[in-house]
Amino acid sequence: MNTQQYQSKVFELAVQEFSKLPGIGGKTALRLVLHLLREETPEVLKLGHAILELKEKIHYCKSCNNITENETCSICADPGRDQSTICIVENIRDVMAIERTQQFHGVYHVLGGIISPMDGIGPSDLKTGSLEKKLGDGKINELIFALSTTMEGDTTNFYLYRKFNKYGVRMTTLARGVSIGDELEYTDEITLAKSLLNRTVFEASS
Amino acid sequence: MNTQQYQSKVFELAVQEFSKLPGIGGKTALRLVLHLLREETPEVLKLGHAILELKEKIHYCKSCNNITENETCSICADPGRDQSTICIVENIRDVMAIERTQQFHGVYHVLGGIISPMDGIGPSDLKTGSLEKKLGDGKINELIFALSTTMEGDTTNFYLYRKFNKYGVRMTTLARGVSIGDELEYTDEITLAKSLLNRTVFEASS
Repeated sequence: MNTQQYQSKVFELAVQEFSKLPGIGGKTALRLVLHLLREETPEVLKLGHAILELKEKIHYCKSCNNITENETCSICADPGRDQSTICIVENIRDVMAIERTQQFHGVYHVLGGIISPMDGIGPSDLKTGSLEKKLGDGKINELIFALSTTMEGDTTNFYLYRKFNKYGVRMTTLARGVSIGDELEYTDEITLAKSLLNRTVFEASS
Repeated sequence: MNTQQYQSKVFELAVQEFSKLPGIGGKTALRLVLHLLREETPEVLKLGHAILELKEKIHYCKSCNNITENETCSICADPGRDQSTICIVENIRDVMAIERTQQFHGVYHVLGGIISPMDGIGPSDLKTGSLEKKLGDGKINELIFALSTTMEGDTTNFYLYRKFNKYGVRMTTLARGVSIGDELEYTDEITLAKSLLNRTVFEASS
């Protein structure tokens, strides 16, 4: 798209930058920029400054790679949380998902990705440095693998299991089973087989 | 969504601001912000500054309401364009669409909206001031109404026709007819009827 079409280099640049975002094509970018032009100036400034502050103020927790505005994130810094139980997740969104359950009282370790040759992510791209240090210091009781139940997740689970086996800590994964609300007849065979094998004692309250 | 969930006020604010954009909900906003966090800093700064510059550098052409970084847009300022033929459009996107055809050599007038009671846009919201002044000065030969062929577009056409009728200039609208590539049997009756009434002499080249 040439400048002639847009009448303004500033406008063109904004459309160009928006269309670099994932899931936003040229037409959506154009629509967003036209929307911003119609908006009140303070609103637009708020968005612009919020984006600028992202890189300036947000860091990764040196202990778990979660996002934080300080050195360590609020979860790692919370004295009420069990530092010896570490839940290994792929990304920050998974931290948020597990936090929403309010059922986990340990801390996290964010890998920043899972092994996926198709996306060019190999074992060396996983951020495991701070976790290995903790394991080496003998401070860990349990590692919970909470990765996606995909080929990539399973590969990463297996890789990490082999890598950390020497430390002799308990390693667990999330239970696989029928989702709450799922109809049994539509559940896939592998999930159904796993849920049978790992059946639990019936509790009247659940 | 509370701050506890996001671990960072800056992060939360960015998600909030993104989700104000049209067509972008909370989940998409979260995805975009996480994407920006993973991006290189210069890329993120480019987007932030592009947004800040939008409101700072882009103005509306005082002659036609098109966007420009100067007082008048490059179309109005172009001595090669016929200032006496004005194409009335709803918004900047329509200017771009017509410019892409490379068939129009007059200038535009951007209304900034069309009459739509459902959206709370009345006749007084249309920006027609600079156009009326030109008409009053007797500099205009033809007004081309290039609005959408919707109820709102037709209402606006009719309103403007009545308003400008006193100036005695030629007023035209875009031809209605069968779109190129359309199958006749699926064309709606009104369009087909119009295209029959307004049939043109066959040219072997077209």
